[in-house]
Amino acid sequence: MEGTIDPSLFDSLSPSELKALAHCHHAKLGVDRPLRLDCGVELGPYRVAYQTYGTLNAQKSNAILICHALTGDQFVVERHPVTGKDGWWDTMVGPGKVLDPARYYIICANVLGGCMGTTGPLADDPATRKPWNLRFPVVTVGDMVRTQAALLDHLGIPDLFCVIGGSMGGMQVLEWAASFPKRVFSAVPIACAARHSAQNIAFHEVGRQAIMADPEWRGGDYREYDTRPARGLAVARMTAHITYLSELALQRKFGRALQNRNALGFGFDADFQVESYLRHQGSTFVERFDANSYLYITRAMDYFDLAGAHGGSLSQAFRGSPTRFCLMSFTSDWLFPTRESRQIVHALNAAAANVSFVEIESDKGHDAFLLDEPEMFRTLSGFLKGAAIARGLDGVR
Amino acid sequence: MEGTIDPSLFDSLSPSELKALAHCHHAKLGVDRPLRLDCGVELGPYRVAYQTYGTLNAQKSNAILICHALTGDQFVVERHPVTGKDGWWDTMVGPGKVLDPARYYIICANVLGGCMGTTGPLADDPATRKPWNLRFPVVTVGDMVRTQAALLDHLGIPDLFCVIGGSMGGMQVLEWAASFPKRVFSAVPIACAARHSAQNIAFHEVGRQAIMADPEWRGGDYREYDTRPARGLAVARMTAHITYLSELALQRKFGRALQNRNALGFGFDADFQVESYLRHQGSTFVERFDANSYLYITRAMDYFDLAGAHGGSLSQAFRGSPTRFCLMSFTSDWLFPTRESRQIVHALNAAAANVSFVEIESDKGHDAFLLDEPEMFRTLSGFLKGAAIARGLDGVR
Repeated sequence: MEGTIDPSLFDSLSPSELKALAHCHHAKLGVDRPLRLDCGVELGPYRVAYQTYGTLNAQKSNAILICHALTGDQFVVERHPVTGKDGWWDTMVGPGKVLDPARYYIICANVLGGCMGTTGPLADDPATRKPWNLRFPVVTVGDMVRTQAALLDHLGIPDLFCVIGGSMGGMQVLEWAASFPKRVFSAVPIACAARHSAQNIAFHEVGRQAIMADPEWRGGDYREYDTRPARGLAVARMTAHITYLSELALQRKFGRALQNRNALGFGFDADFQVESYLRHQGSTFVERFDANSYLYITRAMDYFDLAGAHGGSLSQAFRGSPTRFCLMSFTSDWLFPTRESRQIVHALNAAAANVSFVEIESDKGHDAFLLDEPEMFRTLSGFLKGAAIARGLDGVR
Repeated sequence: MEGTIDPSLFDSLSPSELKALAHCHHAKLGVDRPLRLDCGVELGPYRVAYQTYGTLNAQKSNAILICHALTGDQFVVERHPVTGKDGWWDTMVGPGKVLDPARYYIICANVLGGCMGTTGPLADDPATRKPWNLRFPVVTVGDMVRTQAALLDHLGIPDLFCVIGGSMGGMQVLEWAASFPKRVFSAVPIACAARHSAQNIAFHEVGRQAIMADPEWRGGDYREYDTRPARGLAVARMTAHITYLSELALQRKFGRALQNRNALGFGFDADFQVESYLRHQGSTFVERFDANSYLYITRAMDYFDLAGAHGGSLSQAFRGSPTRFCLMSFTSDWLFPTRESRQIVHALNAAAANVSFVEIESDKGHDAFLLDEPEMFRTLSGFLKGAAIARGLDGVR
């Protein structure tokens, strides 16, 4: 379907979706056989918006799937068609970088429930021809991964050389390895957990409450009123953003420095740089992200519990796994602390899986996985080299 | 002024304030000499609502001032006249407890800017006879402490045997020791910092934005419209509440347990107990706390920077201090982590002050200072005994 535009999938697209779809591929999936979601709903047809970099080799053995995080999307490398900003992982992907399109065929798809072109609450319910909004079924990380597997089927790619992602992307990597072990040669879950903690659910719930408390949310039907819950979504983003950084990073970056003033203002404007920075994070996020989509994707993360889906045993989820695993965590990440990764490593060890694990010293907090972290690149580079040799990939240097 | 009611101070009292003032003392201060606030405004007259326990001895040497935290108030021990709940520090104060009214004269005053009877944004501006709301001057921890000192003058108490408090209460204790060293025989700052960190300012800013984003806030004039920003204030409280607990406490208390259901609901109701708990925290808070007051008191904490007020040197703030200090922090407190207390200890050591410090092993997070923490009680009991002997207090056993 990529390259052509199916008008039946373009009902009531948001301006952001239109821009996004004009700059990437999309596939219409689930036409003959709808996707059975974890909630029991049959979804189909549905659209997957995705981007690719590089070329699939003749053996179809060099495909890498990148799974994006909560507010990421398929625009990994290039200037973003909506925000105009650099790709979110252009430190990792590109010529001469660890994930080099000259060597690998790299795919990244907007997740199910997202707002950059893949079907989500912004889309129309095929049954009613009206926007789903909050009537869109609640999706899970498992559902996201099944849409990606369907996309691979559609692209004729039998298996992946590597699945990689950080944060919610890492959850998808774990789900891939558990659900499709034979399709995953190697897996790199970064800064993630096998289940969402009570504290993380709590932070997500605060964000959702902020959105739903905004009267402009209107029960999720804000687009019908030509409005949006901008202030609620901004507050949600501000809260989340604090959790992505370490206290030390905030202290080093801002401390108690004042914003454009020499003395305290004795008011409720942004006196401190950290306040001004957070407000900016909130307001720019609103320009690029859909509030309902934020509700759905945070919910998917909350629901993630890989052990729970395998009789309460995480090692059972990986039993007999042929996949090579490389896990990474960051010392100052308090959203997905190292102990969460260690639990996964223990489970993989108990399942006698092939696993390596590195805790990377960094004071940049959870966001470190998006940043220039040389040890992350070195670790991944070495891991992929070994995997490529084992896989018999051509052109590995 | 206590015991009588001055009608000129009871203009447009909120129902909560009326109930509170009916169950405590109050003093009209700043009549002849207004209080010069840090922002430059002269405030007067103003009202201080306070509670006392025990009896002042003949030497006036047994007075203890308890400083309450952000959302605390003067009702330390008894059933709260507004919420009907137990006093917030009835584990610490009471017959046979560490702070025993049989031995000490214990005072606790609602802070300036508060909403339980002391003058704050709920009060009327004497100049206009209309509610201050957001026209109330921004106050600081220093201003709070000066109103408490004025209350002591009013009560004829020359100095304090001890000033004690946790969190923002601890900030007031530090300010007392720095501003009125001769009036403070001993000081017990618990779970606090000498300045508010960038991360803590950030969390407060999110809370304020949530309140101000609520259209019912109406620029702070909500009472004139007979409404209130209940949803915004609830979101602010929910965010803050997460920071008061440790991740382990949340995990142990709730984990991923579901609320009144056997399976995930695939919706946006409270699936998880932790969500339901947080929503409850938010909605009950709204019943007892004023939104504008929340803005002012969080701002006061943000502005607190004791070193900044003393030429950038924290030890300078305590130079020549005659006060005996006892600091306590809790291992799992990530809002005011132990390193913040250590910085104060280092500064006190550099000032050659008399200081003891205990980091208490607890997994209860910041809220530990409000809870049944035997080591906190033992530490404080031993410290006070030594101080009482040094002070020559009668009846010390």
